[in-house]
Amino acid sequence: MAPGALIDSKTPSGLPISPKNVVSARELVEAEKDSHDIVLKTFRLLIADLCQQFKGGHPGGSIGMAAIGVALWKYTMRYAPHTPSYFNRDRFVLSNGHTCLFQYTFLHLAGYRAMTFDQLKSYHSSRWDALCPGHPEIEHEGIEVTTGPLGQGIANAVGLAMATKHLAASFNRPGFEVVGNQTWCMIGDACLQEGVGMEAISLAGHFGLGNLTVIYDNNQITCDGSVDLTNTENVNAKMSACGWNVVDIANGCFDIAGLVNALEASRNSDKPTFINVRTVIGIGSKVEGTAVAHGVAFGAEDVATMKKSNGFNPEEHFVVGQETRDFFAGLPSRGEMYVEAWEQLVDDYEKEYPELGAKFRSRMKGELKGWEELIPKSFPEKPTATRASSGLVFNPIAKELDSFMVGTADLSPSVNMSWPGMVDFQHPDRRPSCGINGNYGGRYIHYGVREHAMCAVANGLAAFSPGTIVPVTSSFFMFYLYAAPAVRMGALQNLQVLHAATHDSIGMGEDGPTHQPIELSTLYRSMPNLLYIRPGDSEETAGAWTAAISARNTPSIISTSRHTLPQLPSTSRQGVLKGAYVLQENEAATLTLIGVGAELSHAVGVAKRLKEEKGLEARVVSFPCQRLFERQAVEYKRDVLRRHRMPAVVLEPYAPNGWERYADAACCVTRFGHSLPGPEAYKYFGFDVESLTAKVLGYLNRVERDEMLRREFVEL
Amino acid sequence: MAPGALIDSKTPSGLPISPKNVVSARELVEAEKDSHDIVLKTFRLLIADLCQQFKGGHPGGSIGMAAIGVALWKYTMRYAPHTPSYFNRDRFVLSNGHTCLFQYTFLHLAGYRAMTFDQLKSYHSSRWDALCPGHPEIEHEGIEVTTGPLGQGIANAVGLAMATKHLAASFNRPGFEVVGNQTWCMIGDACLQEGVGMEAISLAGHFGLGNLTVIYDNNQITCDGSVDLTNTENVNAKMSACGWNVVDIANGCFDIAGLVNALEASRNSDKPTFINVRTVIGIGSKVEGTAVAHGVAFGAEDVATMKKSNGFNPEEHFVVGQETRDFFAGLPSRGEMYVEAWEQLVDDYEKEYPELGAKFRSRMKGELKGWEELIPKSFPEKPTATRASSGLVFNPIAKELDSFMVGTADLSPSVNMSWPGMVDFQHPDRRPSCGINGNYGGRYIHYGVREHAMCAVANGLAAFSPGTIVPVTSSFFMFYLYAAPAVRMGALQNLQVLHAATHDSIGMGEDGPTHQPIELSTLYRSMPNLLYIRPGDSEETAGAWTAAISARNTPSIISTSRHTLPQLPSTSRQGVLKGAYVLQENEAATLTLIGVGAELSHAVGVAKRLKEEKGLEARVVSFPCQRLFERQAVEYKRDVLRRHRMPAVVLEPYAPNGWERYADAACCVTRFGHSLPGPEAYKYFGFDVESLTAKVLGYLNRVERDEMLRREFVEL
Repeated sequence: MAPGALIDSKTPSGLPISPKNVVSARELVEAEKDSHDIVLKTFRLLIADLCQQFKGGHPGGSIGMAAIGVALWKYTMRYAPHTPSYFNRDRFVLSNGHTCLFQYTFLHLAGYRAMTFDQLKSYHSSRWDALCPGHPEIEHEGIEVTTGPLGQGIANAVGLAMATKHLAASFNRPGFEVVGNQTWCMIGDACLQEGVGMEAISLAGHFGLGNLTVIYDNNQITCDGSVDLTNTENVNAKMSACGWNVVDIANGCFDIAGLVNALEASRNSDKPTFINVRTVIGIGSKVEGTAVAHGVAFGAEDVATMKKSNGFNPEEHFVVGQETRDFFAGLPSRGEMYVEAWEQLVDDYEKEYPELGAKFRSRMKGELKGWEELIPKSFPEKPTATRASSGLVFNPIAKELDSFMVGTADLSPSVNMSWPGMVDFQHPDRRPSCGINGNYGGRYIHYGVREHAMCAVANGLAAFSPGTIVPVTSSFFMFYLYAAPAVRMGALQNLQVLHAATHDSIGMGEDGPTHQPIELSTLYRSMPNLLYIRPGDSEETAGAWTAAISARNTPSIISTSRHTLPQLPSTSRQGVLKGAYVLQENEAATLTLIGVGAELSHAVGVAKRLKEEKGLEARVVSFPCQRLFERQAVEYKRDVLRRHRMPAVVLEPYAPNGWERYADAACCVTRFGHSLPGPEAYKYFGFDVESLTAKVLGYLNRVERDEMLRREFVEL
Repeated sequence: MAPGALIDSKTPSGLPISPKNVVSARELVEAEKDSHDIVLKTFRLLIADLCQQFKGGHPGGSIGMAAIGVALWKYTMRYAPHTPSYFNRDRFVLSNGHTCLFQYTFLHLAGYRAMTFDQLKSYHSSRWDALCPGHPEIEHEGIEVTTGPLGQGIANAVGLAMATKHLAASFNRPGFEVVGNQTWCMIGDACLQEGVGMEAISLAGHFGLGNLTVIYDNNQITCDGSVDLTNTENVNAKMSACGWNVVDIANGCFDIAGLVNALEASRNSDKPTFINVRTVIGIGSKVEGTAVAHGVAFGAEDVATMKKSNGFNPEEHFVVGQETRDFFAGLPSRGEMYVEAWEQLVDDYEKEYPELGAKFRSRMKGELKGWEELIPKSFPEKPTATRASSGLVFNPIAKELDSFMVGTADLSPSVNMSWPGMVDFQHPDRRPSCGINGNYGGRYIHYGVREHAMCAVANGLAAFSPGTIVPVTSSFFMFYLYAAPAVRMGALQNLQVLHAATHDSIGMGEDGPTHQPIELSTLYRSMPNLLYIRPGDSEETAGAWTAAISARNTPSIISTSRHTLPQLPSTSRQGVLKGAYVLQENEAATLTLIGVGAELSHAVGVAKRLKEEKGLEARVVSFPCQRLFERQAVEYKRDVLRRHRMPAVVLEPYAPNGWERYADAACCVTRFGHSLPGPEAYKYFGFDVESLTAKVLGYLNRVERDEMLRREFVEL
């Protein structure tokens, strides 16, 4: 497209320089090439100063990536600094999050309002309200996802790109490309080494995500030394084998034109693109090209020398000259042109397609409507595994509400999260040999045996825009240990991702100790901003999903059984929302039994047996979710537990850690599991009703003999 | 080598058929080829019967892999069924552990004594002492590692192969190859999808582990359908890019000769070898080649039909005919020939190299001698980060005791786990560009940014032979969440692996919430058979390492600070061994303060301030390890905590879950962290001594007003 050509009214496909004119990126690079030298120098010295002021941080990577940043923020990415939440913006992910100064500095130069010069200088400061934390955080303008733990960002980027593909397939109509952004992801060496990164790379290649561009800051340096200390694979060949386009940039510290060409060519390609950019870490400093440049400031002397050799005054700090300011000055207004063109497009779209337009607006607002009514009011009385109950509760919702994208780590037959008429999310040209086809409009995702990437990709789906997509993942509960770093990142970012975790407890049987999640609940019960919910039957499963779907800024794990469980008469979905509730009250009781999830019926059974055999009266509390219970008023909590009046014993074949807050003793499991059929495994661990009853009686006897035990927590 | 050639007296390099004669595997295959048909049929029908009897299990994979098993157990692997612990045996790892029947059945046929026919039939039974759990378990004869969670086994196999390389480099002398085994690892599709598998593959290629052969059961089927639903990468090209030899076997269900040639060629190659074996899952059944064959029994009718079409009587079950018995009959005696030849070799070696021979014997016994004396009796009084204390304590031990192999996930400058004169573990021809060379005799391992593989590989190093190698891993504590599934597998297998985890607590500072391990301690404190130890100063760090090194069947995490901590006057390494101890006794006390690790000094500071400002007397308990404390006598525990006499408040900027057992209230952190310099982060979370003191006083006031609080756990 020649400079001055009219902007395409439907899809902004170039760099607008005025409301009527666009130029190609290549042309603009050529026109401005004389400014590049000073811009790069200014950026690099600014990074050196920002780290030096607090004698910390990660200067080297950012300095090496300067030209990449210019190519991205000035010439390639379509975004709006003054409308950071512009829906169709390109997404940028800094997967090598420790180089956050790179992003902060470009956000500042590009004109994001919150990122003032003062804020930029708050990097590594003691300022409590700093916008420049040590890794990028989603809460701040211009940051799409929180990164830092390596490999997460690239997987998030895959999710972001999938979100675009999915929304585009769902909403775009000829002439109306209302969703069409690109996702750009910067990575360092680590994202190519971390398992979660490789899982995501493999998945992106399979899905043919041509709207994803990964830019590899190939500086060949890690903390320990050169990358070839530990990695000597042929990276390009590996990426090609995974179904990616591969492009090399030899002189990545300076070749802005080459970078822009490669970036532009990657946009809406047939495959995801991997741009392997050779850079020099900390270029221009004394320690350039070495591991020393990675994670410490260069020292005042080196910074001064750098300034001198670049023609800057070593006495001056944080210098951004007018030419550099001018170079970036037009970005906010250019951004608003994208926003206005897109808003006009959506208005026109709404006129042309009123129903679809309304749906699109609703999705953009993150609305979820009418799901409560889809939950069955009652359930068949026959014993049902709660993994099946999950399907009864959630699948009708998934079927009707397009917001939900449901996936599994290769456990479709086990997790029961599919629905009639469901379409797979697949590249439309893909024809799997088992005959299950799909397209990008599909909402069921086969993640493969990649639990960690599944959850990290789901975070990306959720991060695309608040509430627009609500991802659901599914696997065995035990394998959420593989995914735990990503589940954590979802909780940390307030992303609503629902995790359907089946096969909890020892009752899952023959698969044995490697699959029996003895201690995993303690992790998730203590993880901030996460709901770990173990429902006891179908009714409670309805409550669990209600709690999880209602929590719009919180991920949840619905933890269900592989094996059938009886439907208990007085279980309550409303009770689940309170975390715990009295299942069987008994004013004559001298003991409270706490039952949980798959073993709730065991508590009911023990209460019955105690009464029948010993005339001992017990109340039963159902306790599906500690976090929800903690949110209740103190009076409610005391009334449920009544610990001032009688001892409480919790029954759960998990590690007891944390139950001490609610119970005086626990029938629990403090060793690894055992491979046996489910009912036999319960017997083996003394978790059948008979053994449990004996344990509870034994406890009551012991407390009678030793008063001090009543102040202590006892494992039974 | 022609049949009948004399056995090589030093290194058994073929298949001995009598003490004086060996033949090549190829020749033996040719000589016995007429038996293969019946052996394969027998094996497949036996698997079908074993699953059908309990209507469960995973028949399809095992059936498809029959020829691979014959090639391995009959023609390739060097092992001794009657001496399962033969030190120089080939190691076999079933990374696709759900196909365990494959291994159990070959163990039975090969003549492992424990694996009787009755035991084989116990697969999926209710027998409590079954040797056939749903996944292979290390405790049983012929099983090298417990597998099941996918991707772990292949990483273990990398560790096993590294162990061989290392021991060979350390002990072999010309003519005396006392260590020279091959590691064989079966994988399915999942190990090529799971991140930990890919990390390990990349590492094995880098290290050039020519003694590792991975056999890919390429049946193109997973639970959800065909592999190309989710994975369409060019696997062979990817493996080549990772530095592996790649061999294809087209007809893997039947081509025993082709398999044996490929397996034999891979032994002691220049690179690790990937044998891509095309098989058909559940071959011969009605559901062959489909996902249905994967995880359910075929049904009685299908099994009967299979028998008929193979010329077997459908009314007979578990049939192993004489020809098949004869086919495997010689394996135990062949195994003993390997053992005897090797024992003779080691005897001769000991005569030739008495000192080295004695050392080799000691290592084989797993002895660790003289390490206690290497721990400093005292430490410099200057404030020291406990990550530095870890180095002061452990590095002198690592330097002297060759049993320790220390590694890091690219955090050498941060973890302080290196020692003077240390040599890297590297392929001897490798010349990293940063100039750090090494060889296979080296004991410092650069694992790269691959925390998960690091810990899974370490499990393999430890599993080679009990105690012969004690692996040490190191990273930031937060990243042990990436590695958690492998840490768990180490604990489950009773493997001594020491994890040096630095940067614990919010005090690690600017890196912020993604790096601050608020809730991770609860996972490790509740994980069975693991010691999670947080020492408070150098003296306690000495105790932590003492506890960890003494625990020969238990992994440990030593959790240390990034920031400097004061040396406290009365800390005690002996106290650490008890898990908790009274740091400051005070008979006038009305309150116990529990301090932990990096914040132990905060507890001391609060006690001082309470006394000075309010005249309130408090005792201080140091509590570095909950699991060690749990092992103490009840009297000791009561005496340390004195909870019947006064309330206890624990101070730890972690999620409090689990502290309820030992304290009545916790100054804790129940949200994610914040990016600030360490001391400022403490202030931000109200974890400076002044704020903590106010919180403790507030608690005491509240308890006075509300007696019931004394029975409840309070978060401050």
